[in-house]
Amino acid sequence: MITLYTDSSPNGFKITIALEELGLPYVLRHVKIDQDENKQPEFLRLNPHGRIPVLVDDDNGITLFESAAILLYLADKTGRLLPLAPNARWEAIQWLMFHAASVGPIMGQRVHFELFAADRNLQAVARYRRLTNEAFATLDSRLAGHPYLAGEAYSIADIAQFGWTHIARIIGFDFSQHHHLSAWHERVAARPAVQRGIVIPAPALGA
Amino acid sequence: MITLYTDSSPNGFKITIALEELGLPYVLRHVKIDQDENKQPEFLRLNPHGRIPVLVDDDNGITLFESAAILLYLADKTGRLLPLAPNARWEAIQWLMFHAASVGPIMGQRVHFELFAADRNLQAVARYRRLTNEAFATLDSRLAGHPYLAGEAYSIADIAQFGWTHIARIIGFDFSQHHHLSAWHERVAARPAVQRGIVIPAPALGA
Repeated sequence: MITLYTDSSPNGFKITIALEELGLPYVLRHVKIDQDENKQPEFLRLNPHGRIPVLVDDDNGITLFESAAILLYLADKTGRLLPLAPNARWEAIQWLMFHAASVGPIMGQRVHFELFAADRNLQAVARYRRLTNEAFATLDSRLAGHPYLAGEAYSIADIAQFGWTHIARIIGFDFSQHHHLSAWHERVAARPAVQRGIVIPAPALGA
Repeated sequence: MITLYTDSSPNGFKITIALEELGLPYVLRHVKIDQDENKQPEFLRLNPHGRIPVLVDDDNGITLFESAAILLYLADKTGRLLPLAPNARWEAIQWLMFHAASVGPIMGQRVHFELFAADRNLQAVARYRRLTNEAFATLDSRLAGHPYLAGEAYSIADIAQFGWTHIARIIGFDFSQHHHLSAWHERVAARPAVQRGIVIPAPALGA
């Protein structure tokens, strides 16, 4: 049995969406970040970096943190959500990595400076608006010619990216001028497993 | 034949180190970022995000950007630098993802605000010092009990991480108080392929 330690966050929703899509049974452990449960010793034994999500698979004793690693693991375990043909497979992995390294972290910095920083830091806000728009434009250029990031097939690359565009919509990081990205977002949002995944453990709040 | 488009940077050195370690023949294309060669149309056709490294494999027509995707591809192509046993394999992938999503991007933001930002932004400098130290501490805790990030075997997770600790040393981002991480750095730096990789296409400058 799989146990998922998560909270309602962009990185957390990636894994609830994937598990719902795959139909894998799992035990949910809600790690309440607003109560610092991610900084308790029992959680730090699972992830010394103190971040959700963490997945534990009792079938083989594998414990994993980092959402992109967990998505690759679930695709490998099930043989689904990652194309088998080499070209499409490496496209999917490339776009998953693009999300993990070049989109998610930059979105996270923008959230910090726009929503959470104690002092208004205009230089930083401008920087992260520019960088997120650059990332949105790159995604838009890819999705101009393909329905999904890997090409024809819905994959873990889309699920990872959707975790953050879902939050972007809620908190008002506008990407509507990127028409292909917006259309892709609607396409992914319409999937029943996505609708289920984004309310586990609870819907995201406005900020 | 493999063609590598790269420049002297943390992400670039990851791939030159891996190619040297694997002994794969490759054609080097120096993309001079200080001359905006990464923003020219012919390069943007390879990576619409305009970043190095990019790898093109003529054997199968695969073109990849994002250093973590390229490292996974090279390990898959050769069957080397990524353990085959599931537990060690997923440890390696987890720590590669930790580097790609939680260390590299944060180091990059620290470099920007400490070295390149036009105005001194003390709030941002303090934030990225704190976050990089948190990441160093996480790596240190892992390396306290294992010679390499995946466990016993040197892997692409170490190569990815070394790309950035190499630059951290050059530009004075001190991690010497993290003794296990420092010892690991010396261990990796001593490898002949690493010594070759960090001078291709040229050694990194001080800032």
